[in-house]
Amino acid sequence: MSVVDKELIERIAREVLEEIAKSGVGPSRFASGGGSGPALAPSDLAKYIDHTLLKAEAKPVDIDKLCGEAKQYHFFSVCVNSSSVSRCAGNLQGSGVKVCSVVGFPLGAMCTRAKAFEASAAIEDGAREIDMVMNIGAMKAGDLKTVEDDMAAIRKACSGGVLLKVIIETCLLSTEEIIKSCEIAKNAGLDFVKTSTGFSTAGATPEHVALMRKTVGPVMGVKAAGGVRSFQDAVNMINAGATRLGTSGGVNILKGQTIKGY
Amino acid sequence: MSVVDKELIERIAREVLEEIAKSGVGPSRFASGGGSGPALAPSDLAKYIDHTLLKAEAKPVDIDKLCGEAKQYHFFSVCVNSSSVSRCAGNLQGSGVKVCSVVGFPLGAMCTRAKAFEASAAIEDGAREIDMVMNIGAMKAGDLKTVEDDMAAIRKACSGGVLLKVIIETCLLSTEEIIKSCEIAKNAGLDFVKTSTGFSTAGATPEHVALMRKTVGPVMGVKAAGGVRSFQDAVNMINAGATRLGTSGGVNILKGQTIKGY
Repeated sequence: MSVVDKELIERIAREVLEEIAKSGVGPSRFASGGGSGPALAPSDLAKYIDHTLLKAEAKPVDIDKLCGEAKQYHFFSVCVNSSSVSRCAGNLQGSGVKVCSVVGFPLGAMCTRAKAFEASAAIEDGAREIDMVMNIGAMKAGDLKTVEDDMAAIRKACSGGVLLKVIIETCLLSTEEIIKSCEIAKNAGLDFVKTSTGFSTAGATPEHVALMRKTVGPVMGVKAAGGVRSFQDAVNMINAGATRLGTSGGVNILKGQTIKGY
Repeated sequence: MSVVDKELIERIAREVLEEIAKSGVGPSRFASGGGSGPALAPSDLAKYIDHTLLKAEAKPVDIDKLCGEAKQYHFFSVCVNSSSVSRCAGNLQGSGVKVCSVVGFPLGAMCTRAKAFEASAAIEDGAREIDMVMNIGAMKAGDLKTVEDDMAAIRKACSGGVLLKVIIETCLLSTEEIIKSCEIAKNAGLDFVKTSTGFSTAGATPEHVALMRKTVGPVMGVKAAGGVRSFQDAVNMINAGATRLGTSGGVNILKGQTIKGY
């Protein structure tokens, strides 16, 4: 189907909301890393983390430090703006740490063909994962065709096994819009849905992660980003269904400390 | 010259700081729209204003409202993200109101060739002005060659009389870095320097506008954006040297009212 069916949305919304109400997903459930989720130690978390630096004023020396930490702590990837991709690829060659580039970041309001071009350029420079931002205004207007076409165009640009995540910016969306966004991402063949840019009004919550996980099913990835500041935050997100975490505080999280910021 | 000469920077910094200290540029000087600047009435301001809507969640209906207001109040342009350019161009055809697209917005950390592509795409869609964001991280690192090459590439993409402004994000820069940024923009043949994105830690100040005007001389444009919220703010910026204002509150400013936000 080309856009998401209204009845399907209503059914998923009902099921997900019932399930969330029943399971009591939320910070209280995971107060000691418990609940029904796996027991995790700080050292288990490195492989979940996209070690992230997206500030406008980040200097090459800061990017080099990010890459050094990613190698030292064995993070899954570094997540950077597209102008830093080639530098990271050089730094991380042979290390096993991937380079992830954001695209159309952080507003998602860049025209589709420029997003596709930016993705292609980042891949050419060495990115193996792309975190694109959804056209949020189109979603808010209910123009699902535009949202889907935008994702499909970037999907096409990410050939050769490059993994594609879409940031839906949950803090700006209703429950119904979160579900619609996840359904469209799934239909368009994306690999992950991601909660947040870290540059809007709020970051990830376990409730939103659980809603996204329920909507996309067990196969797609769910990335929690923006607001993952402590070991406990990280565990909460994973227990709610996240398979990847975006944070600038990975080093402190592995040490069991809390960070400020993204 | 390919980068800015150190002695030139030092001389300009000295002269500008002396001049600013002497003239007492700042809000107090313009408390009644007075000082040595021209006397301005609210209705004079429309031609200075880029009527602006850059929020991630802006819907097509909000863009249409922006265009309708721009026509009604005879603003200079509408300033939007690149995905909204073709819609604005359709709305504004024959009205005399220009379409301005931001590029690499708001972080300026997108790779140069993606910025150039986005500019070309926006021009193809009907933009006649481009507000690009500088590579701020490169400026913070003192890598002036990268800053200049980035601007020069977008300048090349803006052929056919398209006007190019560069947003230098003054709130993240030192006085010396503001001067360097303006000198590089001038050398690279840009048309305007612009203070701010409205998405960082602060917007325009009359002091920064005066510094930028002094640095670029009388011919280039200076655009004050982010923090222009009242008629008095607008007058202060113009008296400090601004020839264009970026604000979402143009309608209220023309009515002599104060707005919140960008």
